[in-house]
Amino acid sequence: MCNTEWNGHFRNVSLREDGMAVVIVDQSLLPGKTEYLELEEPSQMYDAILNLRVRGAPAIGICAAYCMSVLASRMLYGSISSGSMTSDEYLEKLIEYGEYLKSSRPTAVNLSWAVDRVLDAAVPAIKEDRDNYEAAAAVRNEAIRIHEEDMEMCRAISEYGLELIKPGDGILTHCNAGPLATSKYGTALGPILLGRERGIEFRVFADETRPLLQGARLTAYELYNAGVDVTLICDNMASMVMKNGWIQACFVGCDRIAANGDTANKIGTSGVAVLAAHYGVPFYVLGPTSTIDMNCASGDDIPIEQRRPEEIIEKFYAEPMAPEGVKCFNPAFDVTDHELISAIVTEKGICRPPYETSLRLVTEK
Amino acid sequence: MCNTEWNGHFRNVSLREDGMAVVIVDQSLLPGKTEYLELEEPSQMYDAILNLRVRGAPAIGICAAYCMSVLASRMLYGSISSGSMTSDEYLEKLIEYGEYLKSSRPTAVNLSWAVDRVLDAAVPAIKEDRDNYEAAAAVRNEAIRIHEEDMEMCRAISEYGLELIKPGDGILTHCNAGPLATSKYGTALGPILLGRERGIEFRVFADETRPLLQGARLTAYELYNAGVDVTLICDNMASMVMKNGWIQACFVGCDRIAANGDTANKIGTSGVAVLAAHYGVPFYVLGPTSTIDMNCASGDDIPIEQRRPEEIIEKFYAEPMAPEGVKCFNPAFDVTDHELISAIVTEKGICRPPYETSLRLVTEK
Repeated sequence: MCNTEWNGHFRNVSLREDGMAVVIVDQSLLPGKTEYLELEEPSQMYDAILNLRVRGAPAIGICAAYCMSVLASRMLYGSISSGSMTSDEYLEKLIEYGEYLKSSRPTAVNLSWAVDRVLDAAVPAIKEDRDNYEAAAAVRNEAIRIHEEDMEMCRAISEYGLELIKPGDGILTHCNAGPLATSKYGTALGPILLGRERGIEFRVFADETRPLLQGARLTAYELYNAGVDVTLICDNMASMVMKNGWIQACFVGCDRIAANGDTANKIGTSGVAVLAAHYGVPFYVLGPTSTIDMNCASGDDIPIEQRRPEEIIEKFYAEPMAPEGVKCFNPAFDVTDHELISAIVTEKGICRPPYETSLRLVTEK
Repeated sequence: MCNTEWNGHFRNVSLREDGMAVVIVDQSLLPGKTEYLELEEPSQMYDAILNLRVRGAPAIGICAAYCMSVLASRMLYGSISSGSMTSDEYLEKLIEYGEYLKSSRPTAVNLSWAVDRVLDAAVPAIKEDRDNYEAAAAVRNEAIRIHEEDMEMCRAISEYGLELIKPGDGILTHCNAGPLATSKYGTALGPILLGRERGIEFRVFADETRPLLQGARLTAYELYNAGVDVTLICDNMASMVMKNGWIQACFVGCDRIAANGDTANKIGTSGVAVLAAHYGVPFYVLGPTSTIDMNCASGDDIPIEQRRPEEIIEKFYAEPMAPEGVKCFNPAFDVTDHELISAIVTEKGICRPPYETSLRLVTEK
């Protein structure tokens, strides 16, 4: 299970063969260094998600599910002593771990979704059989299922997305929703990579995506290594690139989609959508149905994570790049109004406005 | 003349007392280091403009005018031997230096404007009096006049700009058009700094302005040191900040304004204007009439400087922040369509659409 290379793609998240650690590529070090981390303790897992060592909503979900499996196993066999835990105590402890992991990043719905799904899978073994070993096995099987479903999901999204573009199109993308953020293909980059496999070429413009540069570090890295024609730009150059007529479609991922189609994604996504509307370029959101949160009526209900000012001020040059003490506003995400979104591409089909209807239909499929 | 501190502001460009060097603050090292450079040779001058050691259209104009004065003097007294130059040869050499300096940055019209203006001032002394010493004195006096006029211009623009906003307003600015880019007050930052002197407070949001971070390094530095309430954001956060209702006006500078109002300014400006139009925020361009180029019918006629990819790829972390070899698109400026501009604020008054008329009137004043 711990193969780190996989079909020429990185195996970005996997369960170690003994089931007692989650193995991830430390994405915060790419593209300079390729280092693998073995997550064994809850605090390491929390840190890995918080500090974007694993990132991308689907990858976070897969990672969190495997983390729950590791913790479930370690309570039985490993460093965390379960003592003479009853099944209720065991489940309670698992739920507590789940809450802790969920609190690492508030915006991505996949994190909660994956944790809740493996917990739900454990319940029958606990409630009916009172068997903690069975419960741990159920968590593990459910985590593997989430991972496998993600691969199928990415492939389906890639196929649907490919219908929206034609050979030679210029495509603008923001942040990273490629293989590193998911499993094979990715979501927003899926149609491009699937197209490439079939000999269909696109010209991709990748926003560098400040402050943490996922576009420069990860998207440019993935596409460049896959042989795709990719041009890196600063976020503020998207307007000129669209004005020049170089872009025929925008493809972005998503962290949470509200019932009305409002979509939370990496900070700056809403600006790309406003530009696309102004220049008459279709703007597509690509993501799994697990990202749709029918409990959120609109984007106003989506919590937006605020991050440390140092992400903006530091990491540049050898010296600080802004005056010491200056205030910063550093939201990790923004919400794109559904009016600005041409379509939402899921693994179950392409949703068009009105989204209240199309999203409900696709989630009920 | 070589005082580097001036009314609490940096004297960012000045002529050394002996007239044989231009003294500038090396803006490429701010905010970490405050270092002064003495420009004596043409190649140093060219480098200083090309590598943004002096930057901001008006400051480049002032610097270039002083550079011409230094070269005119050095041909007579200094390291550059004029030999037994005739007046025609002397003028020819001066024109040659002017062309060399102009070629350092193609977009800013102030650079050509200032060089041509000091050359024109030299012509009567050459053509009528055949006196190279008189010609050098005329160049020097014209350069000083350009600098003094810039101070008056900034003050007038600041007064007009202040009429457009009210106490407590949130103002978004992009790049740097403050005192460092001009003389005292600046253009886009002028109303804010003049207001501050009068006890009127604003909340300013400064776009960091990738790739060279003039917003983070210079605007945040100037406003923070002046005690203005300034918040630094990444360029891609402007959409969210406007959506939150925090911005009542956008103030930006300009590098060249075409006859129809299309305006070239730092890359990303056009994107801010599109966002402002979408969110219903007025978008103001502030700049001197010398920036208006009636020979450019529209933005399509404005040449846009393309810069090195390394500005995007390097300077981050200790390691490269994008895969080696990846293509980059790195324009220094973009053009904002006149339809997106609410008003153009000059030292001679506020121009409103239709700009063909209002700009012509203001340039003929």
